[in-house]
Order: sequence, then C-alpha cells, then structure tokens
Amino acid sequence: MVTFAEIQNAAQRIRSYIHRTPVMTCASVNQRAGMEVYAKCENFQRGGSFKLRGAANFVLSIPDADIGRGVVAFSSGNHAQAVAIAAAIRGVQATLVMPSDAPQSKREATEARGGQIVLYDRLREDREAIGKRIAQQTGATLIPPFDHPWIIAGQGTAALELLEEVPDLDALAVCLGGGGLLSGCAIAAKALQPSIRIFGVEPAVANDWALSLAAGSIVEIPPPPTIADGLRATKPGQLTFPIVRQFVEEVLLVSEAEILAAMKFLLLRAKILVEPSGAVAAAAVLHRKLPPGVRKVGVILSGGNVDWELLQAA
Amino acid sequence: MVTFAEIQNAAQRIRSYIHRTPVMTCASVNQRAGMEVYAKCENFQRGGSFKLRGAANFVLSIPDADIGRGVVAFSSGNHAQAVAIAAAIRGVQATLVMPSDAPQSKREATEARGGQIVLYDRLREDREAIGKRIAQQTGATLIPPFDHPWIIAGQGTAALELLEEVPDLDALAVCLGGGGLLSGCAIAAKALQPSIRIFGVEPAVANDWALSLAAGSIVEIPPPPTIADGLRATKPGQLTFPIVRQFVEEVLLVSEAEILAAMKFLLLRAKILVEPSGAVAAAAVLHRKLPPGVRKVGVILSGGNVDWELLQAA
Repeated sequence: MVTFAEIQNAAQRIRSYIHRTPVMTCASVNQRAGMEVYAKCENFQRGGSFKLRGAANFVLSIPDADIGRGVVAFSSGNHAQAVAIAAAIRGVQATLVMPSDAPQSKREATEARGGQIVLYDRLREDREAIGKRIAQQTGATLIPPFDHPWIIAGQGTAALELLEEVPDLDALAVCLGGGGLLSGCAIAAKALQPSIRIFGVEPAVANDWALSLAAGSIVEIPPPPTIADGLRATKPGQLTFPIVRQFVEEVLLVSEAEILAAMKFLLLRAKILVEPSGAVAAAAVLHRKLPPGVRKVGVILSGGNVDWELLQAA
Repeated sequence: MVTFAEIQNAAQRIRSYIHRTPVMTCASVNQRAGMEVYAKCENFQRGGSFKLRGAANFVLSIPDADIGRGVVAFSSGNHAQAVAIAAAIRGVQATLVMPSDAPQSKREATEARGGQIVLYDRLREDREAIGKRIAQQTGATLIPPFDHPWIIAGQGTAALELLEEVPDLDALAVCLGGGGLLSGCAIAAKALQPSIRIFGVEPAVANDWALSLAAGSIVEIPPPPTIADGLRATKPGQLTFPIVRQFVEEVLLVSEAEILAAMKFLLLRAKILVEPSGAVAAAAVLHRKLPPGVRKVGVILSGGNVDWELLQAA
C-alpha cells in the first residue's frame, strides 16, 4: 500500500522537474455541470499529461548503481513521453515500446525528447513482454505505466496540489485506465479531506474497472475500441485494484459521444485543449452522472495531447 | 489623451467584474519564438476576450441619470458580447448591431447574455450609422468599440496586469484592429516600464495601420477579407491613431497562413484555444518577425471565441 507520506515525499522529489499546473474554473462548465467544478489542468503539464509525475518520481528513485543502463517503458504514448523527459533529467537513455497506432503527435513528441521508439502491434503483440525482454537484454530499468508504488505516489501529487489549492472539495472525479492516477489521487485526497467522495470514470466500452469491482476480482477485457487512447489498459493493476476498491464510491461510465462532447465543450467554452482520455472525468461531471449531494467537485484533466486529424474528425 | 491614472482607476472600477487572466508560458512556444514569451490569456476572460475590460469600464462610468435607457453597440462579436455582460452588471438592456456573417458562436453567446441583436450587411451597410440611429431613437448610450477614453483605459488594464506580474519585459506585441487594446496597453506598459518596446501586429490583408502610419494620417481601406474577424475595422480611430503613432516602434504584418499556423501551434502545443484575431500578435512572435534585441516579450492573446466549423476548416 502506498502511504500519504510517500506522496508527500514524491512531491518534494519531483517539484523542480514538473509544472505546478493551474486549477481552472469556468462559469459555462459550472452551469452545465450544475455544480462548482475545479479542474486540475494536467493538459498543461510538461509532456502534455500527468504521466510525468509518476515517471519523474520513478526515475529519481532508481538507485545510482542501476540508472546508468537507462530505462525502458511500454505505453500508448503519454507515459512514453513522460519517461523520455524523466530519463533526460538524469541524462540516461530511454527506450519506449509504443503501439503502432498511437497518435502521431505522441510519437513525434517522444522522439523530440530523445526517446528511442520500438513499435508493436497493439492487437497481436504483448507490450509488457517486449518491454521486459529489452530490460533483460540491456539491463535497463523497466518503468511500468501504473502498477508500481513509485508511479502511484507520483501521480498522487496531482490531487495533493489540487486539494492544497481547494481544500473543501466534496468530491473528486478521475479517469480510470490502469488506475495509477486514481489510486494516488484517492490516497492523497482522503488523507487531506477524509470526507471527500472519490469517483472513477471510464469509457463504457472499456469497462474493465466496473466489471472488476462488481466481480470483486480483476476481470480482463479484450483491447477496447475507445477513442480515449490513454485508457486502453485491458485490466486493473494488482496494486491499483485494491486501492481503487477501498476508496472509490462508484465507477461511472461515459459513452464515446459523451467523451467527444466534453472535449468539444472544454475546447469551445473553457478554451482549453484536452485529449479524449483527459476529458473522460469531465464528461461524467458535465453529463451530470455524479450522484446527488455533490456541490464542489475536483476533476483531473489528465492530458492534452491530441492529433490535429483527430480534432478535425471529432 | 488617456493617462496611466485613468487606467489604474479603470482597473479598480472593473476588478470585481472581470477575471484576472493568467499569464502563461510554454517551452514549445519559447523554442519556436527564439525568446521568452509571456502570454496574457484574454481568451480566458469573461465573454472570451479582452473586450469586457473596456465595456465594463464604460458601462460603470455612465452616469446614473442615463444608464436606465440602456446601451447600444456595433461590433463583429466580441465587443457585443462584452457589452451584453457589462449591461447585465448594471441590470440594463443592451442592443447589439452585429454583422450578419459574424461567427454563430458570438451571436449565440451574446443572446445568452441577454443582449438583443440587430443584424446588418457588413459589405453594404454602415454599422455606426445604425448604432447611432438606435441610440437617438431610444436614448440608449452608444458604446463605441474602441475610439473612446473609457474603452482605451479599460483595455489598458490587460497590460497593467501583465506588467505587474512580469515587470521586466523588454517588448510587448499587441494586435491592431481599431487600436483600442494597443493604445491602452501601450500607455500602461510605458508608464510601468519606460524602456519597453511596443509592437503592433495586423493581418497583411488588413494593413490600414501600416498604411496610416506610413502616410502620417488616417488611411481607410475596403472591408478586409481577413480570417481575423475581430480586426476588420477599416481605419484607425481618431483617438487611437495618435496614441499608437506615439508609442509603437513598428507595425508588423502577418499572413493569413501565419495566423492559422499560430492558432494551431497554440492549440496543439500550448493546449489553449485562441481565435484568429487573438493569434495575430502571437503569429508575429512565433514567426520571428520582431526586430533583433528582444529577449522577453509579452503577447496579448486577445480572445478565444472560435466556431467549431472554423476550427475544422483550418
């Protein structure tokens, strides 16, 4: 289990390398949501998503004896970019295993950070196996995308900052992919505000969390066809599942149309670009899926890396 | 002439009704521009543009004896929306004379604020005459879009806030439509930082300012076909021309393609939505049109009201 102290330590460790992202409010959003909404803008984070928090905490925690052999990661894109940035902090090589259908912008941005990319077929190959093989062959440290205490602690710093700025939130809505962001944020938020209600949100077509929580154990689904490319993990993590299970009141589901509508609303009304995965938690709030009684909700806008082509097709 | 004291008074007068918008920085923007760029995000202002600053200062300055008969304004959209919001501050009726080809989003937003819209044909009718006739018939106060000391003083609060936050800018780049924003901002910036260099930026196809400054007197051009719909004024104002002439070092011109490229860059890299007019000053900076010696530039991103259709066609 990750403790609040580990999240506080992570915050100290990574503070020079990440942006303290703004918490934004928007009258149009509040009106549509029917409540006060405080959006933690991780789309403005370095690398365009919250992922740098966990990756930087991980890389900065690797012992000196190991770091020289570099790092390797498998990711749909944002984690890869974050690992590339984090590796550069310590001046070591990063190898990134990315799906061949990852948005072009994410591939280019990862390469621009000095990362070396290895592509794989998302529907046929096992990215985890590829990542592990590279790690064994090169001695590089594998940085998992979510299921590790250092990653979870790093991601939790997003909620730590949000609650420091808006302490009296009565709820927090966070998207669910592998569960790293929600796990860390739930631990931080509950430590700072024990009465806060925690909601996970995932695409209805990628409902591995809802199924797993209903079953009481980890359920795996086929690679889900959601537009939210950051939330395509097929099952909860071994570490994240019990944390989410302990803290989350409910997992809310949003349709693909609701995700796109939320993305468009945030763009045209709040004037900020959020990627589909980043709009998932906001979609639940904007479409009023939270149970009654919530008046002041924090939402993590997890990222903003969007291809121009996706935007034009939206 | 508008004084710095009038801008300071305007700041006090309007502070409860406007957002103090964030000043944003972005590593990608700095890299592309080859200098440090501090963007004053008026796209996040209430009503989606800086226009509320001037409109609110104007409406709050109207004597009690006159305000009851309401206000009227002619505008391509952002000023109209701002006047509608400002009128609501004092609980009076606003009538807005808008071109029939103004973006749908601006018309809808103006109506949503309680404004009453009168449409006119931008190529054939004289919006100023229509506005004046309505003012005469109803006794409403006409709120000009730029050429009035109260408007200029209000717009100047944008630079006042920017320089308060980043005092050591060595240059400021502001778009030129009617010149209200640049006039106010130049007065404020020069008062706070006398050595600051002031640059106006306008679309090359709407070069009434460049022509007027070269001629030494006001030159009028035909309605310009620029995508920057907020910068379609056909000539400098009587009040704004001498102010701009006094303070501006140079008027820089940007192509329509450069405006769109800047808008796209700010969207995909800085993750913020800026309308074409709002991207004009940034376009000059991103395309490195500033003369040598500038290392730390302030840019006013003047607005963010974009139609989804425009974005998809961009």
